[in-house]
Amino acid sequence: MTAPVHIAQALAWVDAATPRLETEEVALRDASERVLAEDIRAAAPIPPHDRAALDGFAVSASDSISAGIYSPLSLPTIAVAAGDAMPEGMDTVVPLDRGLLEGDDRVLLVEAVAAGDGVERQGTAADAGDLLAAAWTRLAPRHIGLLAVAGLTRAPVARRPRVRITIAGSVRSGDAGDSDGPMLRAAVTRDGGIIAETVLADAFAAGADIILVVGGTGPGRADVAAAALAAAGEVAIHGIALRPGETAGFGRIAAGTPVLLLPGAPHACLWTYELFAGRAIRRLAGRDPCLPYRKIEMTTARKIVSAIGMAEIWAVHYRPDGLVEPIASLAEIGLPAAAEAAGFVIVPEASEGYPPGTAVTVYLYDDR
Amino acid sequence: MTAPVHIAQALAWVDAATPRLETEEVALRDASERVLAEDIRAAAPIPPHDRAALDGFAVSASDSISAGIYSPLSLPTIAVAAGDAMPEGMDTVVPLDRGLLEGDDRVLLVEAVAAGDGVERQGTAADAGDLLAAAWTRLAPRHIGLLAVAGLTRAPVARRPRVRITIAGSVRSGDAGDSDGPMLRAAVTRDGGIIAETVLADAFAAGADIILVVGGTGPGRADVAAAALAAAGEVAIHGIALRPGETAGFGRIAAGTPVLLLPGAPHACLWTYELFAGRAIRRLAGRDPCLPYRKIEMTTARKIVSAIGMAEIWAVHYRPDGLVEPIASLAEIGLPAAAEAAGFVIVPEASEGYPPGTAVTVYLYDDR
Repeated sequence: MTAPVHIAQALAWVDAATPRLETEEVALRDASERVLAEDIRAAAPIPPHDRAALDGFAVSASDSISAGIYSPLSLPTIAVAAGDAMPEGMDTVVPLDRGLLEGDDRVLLVEAVAAGDGVERQGTAADAGDLLAAAWTRLAPRHIGLLAVAGLTRAPVARRPRVRITIAGSVRSGDAGDSDGPMLRAAVTRDGGIIAETVLADAFAAGADIILVVGGTGPGRADVAAAALAAAGEVAIHGIALRPGETAGFGRIAAGTPVLLLPGAPHACLWTYELFAGRAIRRLAGRDPCLPYRKIEMTTARKIVSAIGMAEIWAVHYRPDGLVEPIASLAEIGLPAAAEAAGFVIVPEASEGYPPGTAVTVYLYDDR
Repeated sequence: MTAPVHIAQALAWVDAATPRLETEEVALRDASERVLAEDIRAAAPIPPHDRAALDGFAVSASDSISAGIYSPLSLPTIAVAAGDAMPEGMDTVVPLDRGLLEGDDRVLLVEAVAAGDGVERQGTAADAGDLLAAAWTRLAPRHIGLLAVAGLTRAPVARRPRVRITIAGSVRSGDAGDSDGPMLRAAVTRDGGIIAETVLADAFAAGADIILVVGGTGPGRADVAAAALAAAGEVAIHGIALRPGETAGFGRIAAGTPVLLLPGAPHACLWTYELFAGRAIRRLAGRDPCLPYRKIEMTTARKIVSAIGMAEIWAVHYRPDGLVEPIASLAEIGLPAAAEAAGFVIVPEASEGYPPGTAVTVYLYDDR
């Protein structure tokens, strides 16, 4: 291992290695959560012409001026349903319960109507050329609906990253089997990646956008991950000033694909995934690269300790008095602390920790 | 249509119709975002016995007491890798760089070591019987990793709701085609449902957990949704005091499956989905039923108007001065306002709107 690098340096390496992937066209019906690759503008006004906004009687408002409760007025009409094009020469739709149909083509009104009432005018929602959704938008239902209204059936989006996962380390004594694989599958899916799993011998072949090698990152004789990567390309970083996660490493295969070596201990695997691999995958997918947790400022109820020179992640609880209480260093108790926590605090390398009463940034698991 | 019911009454109907679905077992590797149906406790301590926490030399700490820089001490050792069971009679692991291997089974130390250093003790992470994840937990990567560490390969979760979507209304004049279908697919997927699409003739058959009928909800002659539902079961509510969305309706087929009639105009479809159908699907899936947006209090920069007796949804922007500015009533401009908005405000039925300077609850689209 090299001298441990600081988190900022490790993040800079990740960012340089992970540009947004190229554009592909997908059916709009399958575009949920995908990231738009370019601005989408309205090709024509929305709606393209005046339409009935409700079910009723289309009339010309200027014909209705003298209508009154004592002087009902019979007007030419065409019955329309919401969404129908407005008939030629008619500018207003009277609701069904405000007029009385006479035969098929006349309606009796007892009050004047205002021109344009009950009509959705051409261009109300958007003019031709209006921006409907900007490049880098992560498509939510409301965007997909709007693009469909604008006539799109396909959308240009960033391709989803193909994430290859290789479990290289051995299962720990007493564990039932690999626990990192299921955990990483969940995380990669959350972050928009497409997963392929393989064995170490096939880890460094072509065909992936990013390669995660899990386990075997330590200094022992059985720790083969870094040597295997060195043989397939280059190891750029091995050893990060982060607890848990200090044996993580990054590099590339000869063809250039980035490779992240994640420690096999599940809590260290999770945290190096969260800070580095998840960011890499989100960047490739065009998503917001930041941790997918909301940040808030809270005040510590008790001391949080951390070795100087190492960033350290602490799981925290809320307290009823509004303070935040450290549960444990995630390096010590591991996943149970993360599973029961309200969130976590990252104590930076330069800090020895925080005395009680310090304002700290908390990343929240449950953001509501 | 019946007299419009208030949102609270409509929500009460939805809640009564949508209990959490029954439990099914799924592979842990496929359990991401699923909702646990029962508490999961540790069957045995985690770890089940003392393990090496790092690569190094296992020793008995009490043998090392007299070791010093001027009196190096040779101790019996067994080389261990992180995760290995601790060898019988040894309680401490010396890191690789803090001892010098002599032959295969002795290590030279230049300082005493503290008992337990470098060892992950039995039960450090959890004791037998400890709660690992509570019923109703929505499984995130950290939970899945912990359950895998505890030896689970499958998990008991609430079944995913089967959501049948039927587009019953006609396409509006000038629209390229159905825009509600793609939008609803995205929303139902987000909320954990499994989608089946069908035509109106098949909408009310068995085999779904909830049925969404889109369009044809108005009072006109072409508005067939409520009549079709009445023929297949009962219409409980038709007409809700909500803009956009006033023609929505709810009921059940004879077999009991809940049916939500959503207006076909895309903005009304979106909002009745968000407030009612999405909640129904999230409840069936066991998820938090609340709107999937964070709420915050903000202050209005300009007046927001709303008809008394109708709840009304307004899209809003942030302003650089920290105030919130209404863009438009979503009933008027529709999806473009929702697509460009930072979030939205729901003006309740009893309010005529808010003057500038009022504190309002804003639902945020981007919650970070």
